[in-house]
Amino acid sequence: MHAIAVERGANRPVVVETERPVPGVGEALVRTLRVGVDGTDHEVIAGGHGDFPAGEDHLVLGHEAVGVVEDAGDTRFSRGDVVVPTVRRPPNGSNPYFARGEPDMAPEGAYHERGISGAHGFMSTYFTSPEAYLVEVPASIVDVGFLVEPLSVAEKAVELAYASRSSFTWEPESALVLGNGSLGLLTLAMLRDQFDFDRLYCLGRRDRPDPTIDIIEGLGATYVDSRETPLAEVPAAHEPMDLVFEATGYAKHAFETIEALAPNGVGALLGVPGSWEFEIDGGKLHRELVMHNKALVGSVNSNVRHFESAVETLATLPAWFRDAVVTGVYDLTEFEAAFGDDDTTIKTAVQFSAYEERR
Amino acid sequence: MHAIAVERGANRPVVVETERPVPGVGEALVRTLRVGVDGTDHEVIAGGHGDFPAGEDHLVLGHEAVGVVEDAGDTRFSRGDVVVPTVRRPPNGSNPYFARGEPDMAPEGAYHERGISGAHGFMSTYFTSPEAYLVEVPASIVDVGFLVEPLSVAEKAVELAYASRSSFTWEPESALVLGNGSLGLLTLAMLRDQFDFDRLYCLGRRDRPDPTIDIIEGLGATYVDSRETPLAEVPAAHEPMDLVFEATGYAKHAFETIEALAPNGVGALLGVPGSWEFEIDGGKLHRELVMHNKALVGSVNSNVRHFESAVETLATLPAWFRDAVVTGVYDLTEFEAAFGDDDTTIKTAVQFSAYEERR
Repeated sequence: MHAIAVERGANRPVVVETERPVPGVGEALVRTLRVGVDGTDHEVIAGGHGDFPAGEDHLVLGHEAVGVVEDAGDTRFSRGDVVVPTVRRPPNGSNPYFARGEPDMAPEGAYHERGISGAHGFMSTYFTSPEAYLVEVPASIVDVGFLVEPLSVAEKAVELAYASRSSFTWEPESALVLGNGSLGLLTLAMLRDQFDFDRLYCLGRRDRPDPTIDIIEGLGATYVDSRETPLAEVPAAHEPMDLVFEATGYAKHAFETIEALAPNGVGALLGVPGSWEFEIDGGKLHRELVMHNKALVGSVNSNVRHFESAVETLATLPAWFRDAVVTGVYDLTEFEAAFGDDDTTIKTAVQFSAYEERR
Repeated sequence: MHAIAVERGANRPVVVETERPVPGVGEALVRTLRVGVDGTDHEVIAGGHGDFPAGEDHLVLGHEAVGVVEDAGDTRFSRGDVVVPTVRRPPNGSNPYFARGEPDMAPEGAYHERGISGAHGFMSTYFTSPEAYLVEVPASIVDVGFLVEPLSVAEKAVELAYASRSSFTWEPESALVLGNGSLGLLTLAMLRDQFDFDRLYCLGRRDRPDPTIDIIEGLGATYVDSRETPLAEVPAAHEPMDLVFEATGYAKHAFETIEALAPNGVGALLGVPGSWEFEIDGGKLHRELVMHNKALVGSVNSNVRHFESAVETLATLPAWFRDAVVTGVYDLTEFEAAFGDDDTTIKTAVQFSAYEERR
């Protein structure tokens, strides 16, 4: 079968031929439909993560997949079910984090991430997975099923943010998403549809007629150009924010978020920056956290519960939004286009096979 | 009656004569027994907070009081009940934060703080309070009832920290308290008695035979001298911490805490620093928060629920600990000693009258 992989020493994706996997006990064989591409894939290709599966010289890419069950084996699924796989797998049998359904909370060393580190991803004609790591998706959203994984990561971060405010009465009215990439836009749409914010904002640094600005406004949110209004000045220019959601990985955002928050507000951090030394008024930020009961919560990955929430959210998102965010779906013959990135690209996917309604 | 106050333009406490207050509808008249002194009092005296009650040239000090009901009026209390007052009061009638019992979450402008800002404190022969702001205390701990308020502030911060970890299975084993002042020691004792940590640590910067080191070890905790082991090096020297509790107000602690935490750990920030600019590896800290699901929660003040928890905690603390932490209780004739601070001082209080068991 075909797979899209990065080979040791190379820094571009290539098509390789691999053996079709054979499902083991408790596993299903899944025919891959579409696999999304995101910033993590680009980091993997550039060698930023880089653990290849043990003894192998290539890593199959892809962690945002949707597929259809080809052989259900002894699992709870039926042939034809549409499923999305989670990303983390236990490196040696199981461990307590996986056993209790919280692999997203496992520390380094206690997980592989398919398509990212230590285990092959889903960019291949078929993949297998233990049933515990497959989440069923209604056929109505099969076309955008590859958005379930990124959305699940946002669901988890927002869950952590709300949990941090659960010991008192918190009635947030305003939320600001930092970043107008696909994750930022998905989060903005989720906050609009699943929560009760009165005012939503999204911060970016692009000029009109960038298509994301229309999407932001189409969701009823306000676009904030960070070149005109830096994050720390958002409270003065707009209002202090009850929730800030960081989806860029710009290192200063974690700290500027503290100033952008309203009293009792929380910043959810999802972007992953590299090292960068800079000066802050640490006393002022520390005092702000304390005197106004503010919080910062970091969040990585997601588990089955978050995938299930993401499926529900995705089913409620308006069709125009889904169409606008997915700017390209490419067959294997033109897969390189899915890894391209220009001003009009928001979210792309590689299509391995087409979905056909079961009879 | 007598009161201890700071007068406008002065920066030391003095005894003043004031009118005995008359309780209004829904208020009790309380005879003051003891009032504790803490760092906030020293800041108030130095002019660091400084809002005097409207139209007045002095502020009666004291926000950590215990007293006995002298006139219960139409309240639920009886003459002779031992009570502790909460600190915040609504500046104009009430507001939603007070109405729902969460004045600790009120933003600036929506509260006065008795003895700190905008309202007289409790360092007077008598004080009055609406019954909603009085918490009953068993007579068995009347001697240390002035520890309820500072302990309540720690209870709230730990509640916020646990809430932030409530969306997943969190079984913390290790906790580190930053600061071996009275608040740090009270928190350490609370963590020992009310929670299930396997290993407790307390960080300070004093030499043996400082009395606090004996107290820390008496609680079964490990003393960490920050001059030998800076906070960021605690994981290497001891272990990464599931919970870090900041009780010093040293501005760098908020950021070093991120490195001291174990995966999925939380830092509760309570100390209040002034402005201080310094350099951090913000990218590394931001990434640490994200990749290991870490959190920082700021916390200020406390409400009746936290006072009630503090009463329960205080009743469980061993007598030796209470005796060791309270290093001086001074009558009005020698009140200035209660505001002194030397190497042997941990916690002091001013005594206004003695408790006599009701018959």
